[in-house]
Amino acid sequence: MPERIPEFESEEVRKRLESVGIELDESRRSATFVQVDQDAVAAESFYEGVEVMSIKQALEKYDWLQDYFWKAVKKEQDDYTREADSPDVNGYFIRAKKGAKVQFPVEACLYLRTQGHRQRVHNIIIAEEGSELNIISGCTSHPGVAAGMHIGISEFFVKRDAKLTFTMIHSWESDIEVRPRSAAIVEDNGVFISNYVLMNPVKLVQMYPTAHLNGKNSRAVFSSIIVGLEGSNVDVGSRAILNGENSSAEIVSRTISRGGRIVARGHLVGNAPEVKGHLECRGLMLSDNGSIIAVPELEANYPNVDLSHEAAIGKIAEEEIFYLMARGFSRDEATAAIIRGFLDLEIKGIPDVLKAEIDKAISLVEKDLL
Amino acid sequence: MPERIPEFESEEVRKRLESVGIELDESRRSATFVQVDQDAVAAESFYEGVEVMSIKQALEKYDWLQDYFWKAVKKEQDDYTREADSPDVNGYFIRAKKGAKVQFPVEACLYLRTQGHRQRVHNIIIAEEGSELNIISGCTSHPGVAAGMHIGISEFFVKRDAKLTFTMIHSWESDIEVRPRSAAIVEDNGVFISNYVLMNPVKLVQMYPTAHLNGKNSRAVFSSIIVGLEGSNVDVGSRAILNGENSSAEIVSRTISRGGRIVARGHLVGNAPEVKGHLECRGLMLSDNGSIIAVPELEANYPNVDLSHEAAIGKIAEEEIFYLMARGFSRDEATAAIIRGFLDLEIKGIPDVLKAEIDKAISLVEKDLL
Repeated sequence: MPERIPEFESEEVRKRLESVGIELDESRRSATFVQVDQDAVAAESFYEGVEVMSIKQALEKYDWLQDYFWKAVKKEQDDYTREADSPDVNGYFIRAKKGAKVQFPVEACLYLRTQGHRQRVHNIIIAEEGSELNIISGCTSHPGVAAGMHIGISEFFVKRDAKLTFTMIHSWESDIEVRPRSAAIVEDNGVFISNYVLMNPVKLVQMYPTAHLNGKNSRAVFSSIIVGLEGSNVDVGSRAILNGENSSAEIVSRTISRGGRIVARGHLVGNAPEVKGHLECRGLMLSDNGSIIAVPELEANYPNVDLSHEAAIGKIAEEEIFYLMARGFSRDEATAAIIRGFLDLEIKGIPDVLKAEIDKAISLVEKDLL
Repeated sequence: MPERIPEFESEEVRKRLESVGIELDESRRSATFVQVDQDAVAAESFYEGVEVMSIKQALEKYDWLQDYFWKAVKKEQDDYTREADSPDVNGYFIRAKKGAKVQFPVEACLYLRTQGHRQRVHNIIIAEEGSELNIISGCTSHPGVAAGMHIGISEFFVKRDAKLTFTMIHSWESDIEVRPRSAAIVEDNGVFISNYVLMNPVKLVQMYPTAHLNGKNSRAVFSSIIVGLEGSNVDVGSRAILNGENSSAEIVSRTISRGGRIVARGHLVGNAPEVKGHLECRGLMLSDNGSIIAVPELEANYPNVDLSHEAAIGKIAEEEIFYLMARGFSRDEATAAIIRGFLDLEIKGIPDVLKAEIDKAISLVEKDLL
C-alpha cells in the first residue's frame, strides 16, 4: 500500500481536503482512501470490521466482486457510464462486514490532480447484513487545476438490517465538469442515507442518484445543500423507487442561487403496498442573475401508496429582515441569520467536523452577499 | 349560416352535447358555435357585445385577424401545430367587444362526426379592453365514432382590464386521440381563467396550455379535474410564464386513476419582480392498475419571486371511511362522499348547468367503483 504522499502535508492541499470533510487525524476516522487522478495513493483501515482498498485490488482479491459491477447502475445508461467502463478505471471498494458497527467515518477522497484530466472512478460499497457504515466521500481538485472532468460510478449495496450513511462533499473549480452516476440497492429493513453538499464554483454538476428500495421496510433519505455561484450549472436530482412493501423515502433539498443555475429534481416512484414518500425542495434566490428550477416528480403505480411533495422558491422576505432588525440585528446580521436558518437541514449521520465545514461554507456565502 | 342540423335534435346527440356542457336552450347562453368535423354548422350570437363566427368567415371579414394567427402558439411547435396549419382548418372566432360584460356563456362545440377523421381546429378568442367573457368549449365525438383525431389550436388574447373564463369539457371515446395546443397572452390587469374537465374514456389526451402573463398585475388560474379510465393515457399540464410585474398564477389539479395513466404537469416561471405563483396537484388511486404521475416545475429566473408547490398522491384513507361509517354511512356511501369531496374544486366562473354535469360524471365514477 503506498504511504501518504508528502504533497498532502502541504497547508494548501490540507485545506482542500478539509473543505470536503477529509481530515488526516487518524483518531477520528475508521479508514482512509485517497485516489489522485487514476492512482490509489492511500488505502488503510483502522477498524477490523471495515475493509477499504482500491477497486483494482479488490477485483484481484475477490472473484465474487465482479457480480456487483454494473448491478445497480446500468453500464449503457449514457455516454459517461460507457466512458467509465474503461481499463484504467479506479475507485474504492468499501465493505462493512456482517454485524460490524463502525462509529467513525470512512473517509474517501477522489482528487483531481492534473489539469485537463478525465478522472474515471468506479466505487463499490457494501454494507453487509446488520452492519452500520458511515462514509464521507470528498471530491476535490488540486489548487490551480481549473479544467477537467470527474466521472464517478458508485454502486451501493445495503443488505438486510444494515445502515449506510454516505455523505458526498464537492469542492471544485470553475471549469470542471462533474458527472456522478450512483445507485443503491437496499434489502429488507435496510437504510440508505445520502447527503450531498456543494458550495464552491463548478462549471457543471449533473447527477441523479437512485435508491432501489427492494426490501420490505427499507428506507432511503436524500438530503442536499447546494449553493450555485455565478457561472455554475448544477443539475441534481434524487430518485427513490419504492418496490418493497412498506418501504419509505424522503428527499429534501435546500438550494441557493448566487448567480448560478440550479435544477433541483426529485422522483418518488410507488410500486408496492403501504409505501410512503415525501419530497421537499426549497430554493432561495440571492442574486439578480441565476435561476432555480425545481422539478419534482411523484409517480404512483400502485393504489396503496402515500406520496407527497412541497416546494417553494423565493427571496428572503423583507418582513423577516425587519423583524430581526427590530430586535437589534443589523441588516447584514439579519440576512445572515436567515440564510443560516434556511440551510440548517438536519443532515442525518453527519459528523461534527463536517457540520463545522458546512458552517464555514455558509459564512463564506454570507460574506459574498454582504 | 346553416340552420341547426336536424341530427342535433336526436336524444342521443343531445346527451353527448349536454355531457360537454352544451345546452341548446337559447335563454341560457349568449352565443353558440357548432363545428362538425371541418364544417361550421351553427354560429350565432344573442348578445350584441359578443361576436361569434367561424374562423374562415372571420378571416374574410377582418384583415387584421391575420396578425393574431400563430401569435400565442408557435406554428413550428410540433407535428400537430404544423398539421393544423392546413387549408381546410376551421374553428371559431369569438370576440367580446370593448367593455362588454357577457353573463351567459358562449357555447362552442367541436364535434367529431366521421369515423377516422382528423379534425383540425384553429380558434382565436379575443376579450377586448375591459370586457368579460365566459366560454364553454365542449369537444365530443358522435355516438359510435370510436376512432379519430382532434387537433385544436386555441389562441387567447386578454386585453387590458379584461377577464376571460374558458372551460373546456372533453367527452371522447376510447380510440380517439386529442392534442389541443393552447396559449393565452394577457395584458395589464387582465385575468385568464382556464378550466378543464375530462371524465370519459379516451385513447390519448396530450396538452400543455400556456398563459403568458405579460401585463402588470395580470393573472391566470388553471383548474383541472381528470378521471383516467382503464386504457386512457392522459398527459395534461398547465404553464404560466410570469413576465409582468406583480403578475400571479395558480394551477390546481385533481386527478383520479381508475386504471388509466395520468401525467399531471405544471410549470410556473417567474421572470419579473413581485410575481407570485402556486401549483397544487392531488391524485387519488382507485384501481390496482393505472398510474398517476405528478411533474410540477417551479422556475425562478428573477430574485423577487414567490413560487410554491404542493402535491400528494395516495388512496382513500381507511380512517376517513371508518369515521364516516361510524356516523351511519355505508361503506359505499362513505367512499362516494370522500371522492366527491376530493373532486370538489371550486372551479371559478363555472355555470350551474356545468356543475350539475360534473356531479353527474362523478356519480358515474362512483357507480363504477362500487
